[in-house]
Amino acid sequence: MAERRVLILAEGRFSVFDAKTATCVIRYAPQEVVAVLDSKTAGGTTDRVLGFGPPIPIVGTLEEGLARGPDTFLIGVAPRGGRLPEAWRRMVKDALEAGLTVVSGLHTFLSEDPELAAVAERTGSRIHDLRKVPTDLPVASRRAAEVDATVVLTVGTDCNVGKMTASVELTKAAERMGHAAAFAPTGQTGLFLGGRGLVVDRVIADFIAGAAETIVLENAPGTDFVFVEGQGSAIHPGYSGVTLGLLHGSMPDAQILVHPPTRERTLNDEVEIMPLADWIDLYERLAGYLKPAPVVGVAINGWDLSEGEAREWAARIEAETGVPAVDPVKFGAEPLVEAVIERVGVRKGKAAGARR
Amino acid sequence: MAERRVLILAEGRFSVFDAKTATCVIRYAPQEVVAVLDSKTAGGTTDRVLGFGPPIPIVGTLEEGLARGPDTFLIGVAPRGGRLPEAWRRMVKDALEAGLTVVSGLHTFLSEDPELAAVAERTGSRIHDLRKVPTDLPVASRRAAEVDATVVLTVGTDCNVGKMTASVELTKAAERMGHAAAFAPTGQTGLFLGGRGLVVDRVIADFIAGAAETIVLENAPGTDFVFVEGQGSAIHPGYSGVTLGLLHGSMPDAQILVHPPTRERTLNDEVEIMPLADWIDLYERLAGYLKPAPVVGVAINGWDLSEGEAREWAARIEAETGVPAVDPVKFGAEPLVEAVIERVGVRKGKAAGARR
Repeated sequence: MAERRVLILAEGRFSVFDAKTATCVIRYAPQEVVAVLDSKTAGGTTDRVLGFGPPIPIVGTLEEGLARGPDTFLIGVAPRGGRLPEAWRRMVKDALEAGLTVVSGLHTFLSEDPELAAVAERTGSRIHDLRKVPTDLPVASRRAAEVDATVVLTVGTDCNVGKMTASVELTKAAERMGHAAAFAPTGQTGLFLGGRGLVVDRVIADFIAGAAETIVLENAPGTDFVFVEGQGSAIHPGYSGVTLGLLHGSMPDAQILVHPPTRERTLNDEVEIMPLADWIDLYERLAGYLKPAPVVGVAINGWDLSEGEAREWAARIEAETGVPAVDPVKFGAEPLVEAVIERVGVRKGKAAGARR
Repeated sequence: MAERRVLILAEGRFSVFDAKTATCVIRYAPQEVVAVLDSKTAGGTTDRVLGFGPPIPIVGTLEEGLARGPDTFLIGVAPRGGRLPEAWRRMVKDALEAGLTVVSGLHTFLSEDPELAAVAERTGSRIHDLRKVPTDLPVASRRAAEVDATVVLTVGTDCNVGKMTASVELTKAAERMGHAAAFAPTGQTGLFLGGRGLVVDRVIADFIAGAAETIVLENAPGTDFVFVEGQGSAIHPGYSGVTLGLLHGSMPDAQILVHPPTRERTLNDEVEIMPLADWIDLYERLAGYLKPAPVVGVAINGWDLSEGEAREWAARIEAETGVPAVDPVKFGAEPLVEAVIERVGVRKGKAAGARR
């Protein structure tokens, strides 16, 4: 597939924290990004805002962005609730007028908006709604437990902790170690980056687990590992249903807990984050009613930590939990993949003698 | 509201077990039902099949049903996955032709089916899809915790254990005890019976908890109790996400565990049902991360038990769990309402001194 030339819309919100999709695309596909559109940080470059990656220009208007020759306009901010702010409608129309493919992860489907659809129809430009999901998903019934590949789910201490990033890093580490590995995206950002998946939080509630099951069944053949991107947290007041459906639908063999150590309270609800040992107990219990899935390691989200600090946190977390901990972005996820192999094996077919 | 005259479609599947909607409507609104359509049991009466209620005729064809003068045609069977069997399409068309309002709880919206919609348009007959839900639901954020009414959620040891029935019985018992009480339906059958609610399992996954929150906020004003109909079970491979979202969105003050004592394994997955004390621990933990909600009693589903057997099971379950147990259909749910009052109070405003 030819590389895209992506202009990312992050209007008014370009930061590591607020523009998750933009940040992740710049981390994993920087060569595809020609500019970020954000009038607040315009004039600077993305490396100054994010603290990593190449110096991609930030522009203040769509016109400046178009001058950099993009072929894709990505809505790079996912507002809570997922709907399109009216202020962005004009930009989407202009991008379509300019012949760009508009890619959106919003809950409101741009392709079903009469005005935008009419512009797309007239100009021949495409609208790709990442959240569109199949309408023929099954009710899950533990079919994912039967695949031969080892399935690993990332779970978190909160929403927005870096489960997608950890899943991508796990996949890359497994590949570096010589294994066949598939990243199974369950959110719009992961899906934009590539891989067979679907946006699970968009599915009708009865089919959440069925969606996860479908993703695992599609990714498992011919690979050693399937790393399933987790969502939310098991006690998130808004999203816990998605989290649990994903866990029971994907039927993982092992779980990796993702945690930003400097976050002491949850993002949207100001609840104190429980000790990690309690989190591990909770996720192992919830999985274990249907199938054992040990939490074999902790992926540290150290976006705000130095290398030294990340190592200190890793040592502290290992002492606290008894499982390996590492910041996979800084140091690679190899120790976590090793932990999976040690505890549950590379493939279940080969793992008969492994410790479960 | 004038009473309806309902013909219930339960073709090929009329039994307590297989026709949940039909069974519950006959239990709680028998005066509205003119006939059941099922060619397998045709010629008999519903009391012979169900073991309760008045002798409502069972007919074998739509024509015979229409002869009894219905104004409403209810799809009374909810197939796994919720879709309309092709064989029933003809009957729905004929019912619309005959001027009946068609009410459906299927996932496939009959009102959006071009052929059926055209018939409705031409004849002026109405199609009411119970599963249609609002598109502007919020992401939940614990707003339901702040209502003044005492919120009680029914939870179960499996799907299809009688959570709706228990919730209706709790509401009726509270009313008999002189309290204002609202039944908050979350499934299509409850919604058909009445009450402010919506079909939670039809909601987009991100908004499950938000749907539950909305239902509680709508029902709470001016009432002492809101009895929220639960769904699924916390470890059901297909539906656990809905269960947990409902729990975290409705923010109950207390939970009632519903269990059919003779069921030893789960319906669809052949897992052994855990001891009730473990179930109580699980639901209290899952709620307690966000807000304490003790399981204050067990509602026994004794559809297959004699009164004596139901009393024996109640004694056994009380000894095992330490909380009151009763078959609410046979004996009324008063002991369970009393348990709620003793543990958490009638209204939170008044419950400051109550044991939590």
